[in-house]
Amino acid sequence: MKLASLNRGRDGELILVSRDLTQAVSASDLAPTLQAALDNWESCKAALEARYQELNQGQAQGAFAFNQADCHSPLPRAYHWADGSAYVNHVELVRKARNAEMPSSFWEDPLMYQGGSDAFIPPQAPIQMADEAWGIDLEAEIAIITDDVPMGITASQAADHIKLLMLVNDVSLRNLIPGELAKGFGFYQAKPSSSFSPVAVTPDELGEHWKEGKVHLPLVSHINDQLFGRPDAGTDMTFNFPTLVAHAAKTRPLGSGTIIGSGTVSNYDRSAGSSCLAEKRMLEILEKGEASTPFLKFGDRVRIEMFDTEGKSIFGAIDQAVEAYSAD
Amino acid sequence: MKLASLNRGRDGELILVSRDLTQAVSASDLAPTLQAALDNWESCKAALEARYQELNQGQAQGAFAFNQADCHSPLPRAYHWADGSAYVNHVELVRKARNAEMPSSFWEDPLMYQGGSDAFIPPQAPIQMADEAWGIDLEAEIAIITDDVPMGITASQAADHIKLLMLVNDVSLRNLIPGELAKGFGFYQAKPSSSFSPVAVTPDELGEHWKEGKVHLPLVSHINDQLFGRPDAGTDMTFNFPTLVAHAAKTRPLGSGTIIGSGTVSNYDRSAGSSCLAEKRMLEILEKGEASTPFLKFGDRVRIEMFDTEGKSIFGAIDQAVEAYSAD
Repeated sequence: MKLASLNRGRDGELILVSRDLTQAVSASDLAPTLQAALDNWESCKAALEARYQELNQGQAQGAFAFNQADCHSPLPRAYHWADGSAYVNHVELVRKARNAEMPSSFWEDPLMYQGGSDAFIPPQAPIQMADEAWGIDLEAEIAIITDDVPMGITASQAADHIKLLMLVNDVSLRNLIPGELAKGFGFYQAKPSSSFSPVAVTPDELGEHWKEGKVHLPLVSHINDQLFGRPDAGTDMTFNFPTLVAHAAKTRPLGSGTIIGSGTVSNYDRSAGSSCLAEKRMLEILEKGEASTPFLKFGDRVRIEMFDTEGKSIFGAIDQAVEAYSAD
Repeated sequence: MKLASLNRGRDGELILVSRDLTQAVSASDLAPTLQAALDNWESCKAALEARYQELNQGQAQGAFAFNQADCHSPLPRAYHWADGSAYVNHVELVRKARNAEMPSSFWEDPLMYQGGSDAFIPPQAPIQMADEAWGIDLEAEIAIITDDVPMGITASQAADHIKLLMLVNDVSLRNLIPGELAKGFGFYQAKPSSSFSPVAVTPDELGEHWKEGKVHLPLVSHINDQLFGRPDAGTDMTFNFPTLVAHAAKTRPLGSGTIIGSGTVSNYDRSAGSSCLAEKRMLEILEKGEASTPFLKFGDRVRIEMFDTEGKSIFGAIDQAVEAYSAD
């Protein structure tokens, strides 16, 4: 099943989107918003699925042409957005570039931070920032959405709580990170609003590419229409999604609609490219002693997408210009 | 105006509470939930205020006896809960106890972390934890709730966006903090679900005690019916609430219903007692070389409240037992 939220009102209007992303139909009579659907997933699911089948068969009443640009994030605002850093090879690389040892516990115990979830940027709206000097970067990732998760759940129990998948651009302000990390309280200003793909999909939509709690397909990022990276999201993912969910739920329950991200997708095989500029710059530092690729500038464009084996977009595209912002 | 949420459904049912906390009346016809009221604050406010006046005059139709135990947190779940650490003398003390220098920038640049907001504990429900050895602690604090705050706002502009105030118990797991801080990503498992006072109040309810963006009254904490601390929340607060809001909004807008906490209320005058056990233990370490006060144990009770100059409770009480939790 593929779901999206038209950019209307604070929480969007729930629609179903056809598998090929060409058609859509309202689902707001079944659940007004995606949050409402997740709050009542077991009772909503059958009716949503029935309409989704009709839509794919060209038989849904009121179907209309789907336009990704009309979408907000599937959850325009959410009660919980926690981002892991599951591709530990990326963390290892970052440490190596600054000559720091990575604690071996990082291979056993996931890194996770809590991000701002009250004001996501729509998937095809601009990233507005006041200052280019903050070091604006993309982070192309995959995220899952859960239903209600009890506190203390195990990873194997957590798998059933993964209801939807999306792509993420976890926008990061690299030059604000060192100052915030030095304070010891983690990221806050360095992690402004994130964006998610126009469409969220149930795991079954990925078929054989969803296995062992990972998505086994390349995550494709472009910067200014140039291919930037296409690392395989199923390769070198140290912690799978059920493990990340269990980590998040160790000391508290997770409410329905909790979003958990994978962290920057990254492969040891560097020929696949990267999912963030910071990684590319680290590789440049290791190779040449200094970074030559700049962070994003006003006017740059970022596009993040994932394709099935037939080359069809699964989630639609995060496609965003970076723009100057003025508070006045 | 005083508002609360009856513990019904995921988002509660909005009620108005009389100034003396004895009577209440439904407001769900004006806004079904407090989040809905905050989403439409300017259009809701006049009708809510009119009914609040009727309630205080004993003229509200359908008024009923108010019972704090029937309440959830004013926002049972929220889109954004960020906690500052505005009483810098407390941070300084913690550093001193472990012989670490506090960077002088801490006096200029607020510490802030983002907390879990999808599953708050009701104000008079138990704090359930799987393991006493995690070092369960209270943190008695004050928090504000904003309406929509534009990105990049100044502190002086931020003051008008503070719509409501509450008390907080920012439950903390002290023995999980060192491990998480060492990872560099900030708190996550160490900060389980928080609780808020039964009642949220508009700033005007505090009269002369709300000035310069601070609450000038003692915050009173009891542990097992023994007075634990009553530091004045207006004293030694290095960053006032508008400054904390501006800090939070530096690189992103804040959605309506954003909760910003003060951090543990703490006075240089240690005779006022503390607002968390960690502080008391630090003082013991500095005085006697070791901490003698244990963290909370299963069966302990915590009570957090604030009184006006006539001794009347303003927000109702956070009053919670600590209990063992089992995931099975």
